[in-house]
Amino acid sequence: MNTEAYMIDLGQKARHASRLIAKADTQQKNKALLAMAKAIDEARAELMSANEKDLIAGREKGLDAAMLDRLALTPARIDGMIEGLNQVAALPDPIGGITGMNYRPSGIQVGKMRVPLGVIGIIYESRPNVTVEAASLCLKSGNAAILRGGSESVNSNLAIARCVQQGLEAAGLPLEVIQVVETSDRAAVGHLITMPDYVDVIVPRGGKGLIERISKEARVPVIKHLDGICHVYIDKAADKIKAINISINAKTHRYGTCNTMETLLIHESIVSDVLSELAERYQAAGVELRGCPLTLNRLPGITPATEEDWATEYLAPVLAIRIVESMDEAIAHINQYGSHHTDAIITENYTDARVFLRDVDSSSVMVNASTRFADGFEYGLGAEIGISTDKIHARGPVGLEGLTSEKYIVFGDGQVRV
Amino acid sequence: MNTEAYMIDLGQKARHASRLIAKADTQQKNKALLAMAKAIDEARAELMSANEKDLIAGREKGLDAAMLDRLALTPARIDGMIEGLNQVAALPDPIGGITGMNYRPSGIQVGKMRVPLGVIGIIYESRPNVTVEAASLCLKSGNAAILRGGSESVNSNLAIARCVQQGLEAAGLPLEVIQVVETSDRAAVGHLITMPDYVDVIVPRGGKGLIERISKEARVPVIKHLDGICHVYIDKAADKIKAINISINAKTHRYGTCNTMETLLIHESIVSDVLSELAERYQAAGVELRGCPLTLNRLPGITPATEEDWATEYLAPVLAIRIVESMDEAIAHINQYGSHHTDAIITENYTDARVFLRDVDSSSVMVNASTRFADGFEYGLGAEIGISTDKIHARGPVGLEGLTSEKYIVFGDGQVRV
Repeated sequence: MNTEAYMIDLGQKARHASRLIAKADTQQKNKALLAMAKAIDEARAELMSANEKDLIAGREKGLDAAMLDRLALTPARIDGMIEGLNQVAALPDPIGGITGMNYRPSGIQVGKMRVPLGVIGIIYESRPNVTVEAASLCLKSGNAAILRGGSESVNSNLAIARCVQQGLEAAGLPLEVIQVVETSDRAAVGHLITMPDYVDVIVPRGGKGLIERISKEARVPVIKHLDGICHVYIDKAADKIKAINISINAKTHRYGTCNTMETLLIHESIVSDVLSELAERYQAAGVELRGCPLTLNRLPGITPATEEDWATEYLAPVLAIRIVESMDEAIAHINQYGSHHTDAIITENYTDARVFLRDVDSSSVMVNASTRFADGFEYGLGAEIGISTDKIHARGPVGLEGLTSEKYIVFGDGQVRV
Repeated sequence: MNTEAYMIDLGQKARHASRLIAKADTQQKNKALLAMAKAIDEARAELMSANEKDLIAGREKGLDAAMLDRLALTPARIDGMIEGLNQVAALPDPIGGITGMNYRPSGIQVGKMRVPLGVIGIIYESRPNVTVEAASLCLKSGNAAILRGGSESVNSNLAIARCVQQGLEAAGLPLEVIQVVETSDRAAVGHLITMPDYVDVIVPRGGKGLIERISKEARVPVIKHLDGICHVYIDKAADKIKAINISINAKTHRYGTCNTMETLLIHESIVSDVLSELAERYQAAGVELRGCPLTLNRLPGITPATEEDWATEYLAPVLAIRIVESMDEAIAHINQYGSHHTDAIITENYTDARVFLRDVDSSSVMVNASTRFADGFEYGLGAEIGISTDKIHARGPVGLEGLTSEKYIVFGDGQVRV
């Protein structure tokens, strides 16, 4: 079978399975999730040896250390997968919830019912644990899924897929609810993202290049997250201690995450209270500073920031600093150079907080908290399939609800339009 | 200026204006809407004469009667535009609403704030009243809009646009909040739908051909409605009177609307109670019937329905009828051949109603009510920019809320991630 025919076949099976999983009850879905956890626990040796094959091939192929790290299944990561399945089983089932049933003058009663999206295509890099995460979230939200992991993790993914299938089988659910693309032909992705008859939405997880390419070529909606150019703005009315603690945490807690601060904006009237202490602490932590001309006046040793710096997601111990004359200038900077991901103001001023919350056009806007909190678990979603920087459908951390939609339902007693 | 440069210029102005309209308060937006209504009322003669130019050109061009009818501005239609503006002014402002602020174990408080989408591109056929409708809904929901009407209505649209601009001016809002594309170059649409930097979402309104083309070529999300292949299913447990009244109303109330029934499904055990009366009344109303083999056995004079009939939106006095052996067969038919728009079951059986509501994958699912109720006004949205058959973002009738999104907001007291 050629790749196109193979993908259409997967798509048709997924569409069919999606009708069945949409009506599965909560107990049945949870049973499948718990049985998957058990199957993974019992298949530890098998998973490790499948992963070993991938690691050997990866090393031969010359994958770098970071890629090999993401590819590796350790006992702790397997524990994490099992724990994740148990957690998703414990989450409330979003499907079927009815809200807002109101009577209308015609006598009909109108409201909304939460329903699955249908078939979700997930495209991710060589991180085998994503296979379990994506499968569990799609299943719990009543969707069928087609999973396409990086080709370097193919043996690991297939071993995990067998455990997933065992879970579905134990719960009496069709195996086609979760399908893993088995061909390593790269054309498979091209087909997956252009089958609107069989796939309702694509969730790509990976680097910016992958996501940009998929968004460009997709013929179905994409729930995506491009980059996280996050800001902290220290307002004129900031509490100095909060400003310093949050600015340090937002940059140095982890460097490689999308909710890490990349640019620090400081109001000129407070800069002398905070900048030298911040600079010392950043430099002690090994963070390279780059500054606007006003910052350079105060920290003459650092690198000048270019236009490009303001628009860069470093994902590294590098920080751009700009001194602004007003909050409006800070907001304009964030809306122009940021990626509409997560931005925070540090202030004790009520009106400044209110204006910043309204005017910053980002998926998360915070007052006096570290940008690092932008996360499905921290927000109480229980799990996260990604963080969306789109404005349509889900925005910000996407949990189970982001994988659902609402349809209108109408109750009548024989009403007709007059 | 060439068309591309012109559209980019419009886009940049719209993006800038969107930041300003996003922070306009309710009073200012309502002031603009009411001033638009006043300007239109005062410009009646001017609007009629601009429209006359379009009508003369349209007749010369050989537009058909239906197109000329949609193009015509009558005093009653101008009244309707004014009434519509007053109604939108009276609607609650969706912007800025904060919901679900809950404390998390970390001490941060997380919730959502409703915000505009940004810049909305509306592409529609030669119906000048849509210019006012689209402008008012975008404005009230805090968005900037770029409106591109059919080239046959260019004079009418520009005359209306002048009234819209007067309203914006009277309220002290930037004129670029609502821009009408002034070039009749068809390439303008191609640019409008491929400028993700300046346009956040496209709403096409018009025939299926237009919408399919736009969906295919767009590089920004599209809130769209392709077609309305709506069904009424008369269940075995239907009340006969309700079944007949609703089936007649859903087909004959209006033929050209998207929520009109196109296929009637009847459970075999109730068919002898309803079919002959229905057939008589349809035939008396001039509705052509086409049937499955079982229907033909009972109504031998009618045309056999083909596979194509089940998948056709007639928009005309034609109805396909199929007799089914079970509700599951009806649901499978609807999910396979329908357009996921609006489908109704007629039943007195509680469990059948519940299963139908869950399993029919359409934007509106009804029990004992006419499909003709699928409408923003009937649902209480106050206004409607269209009906979405997509699953992502808005589904079903799209009112003001469908032109907005929610961002997360976080209140902290200096919290950092540990």
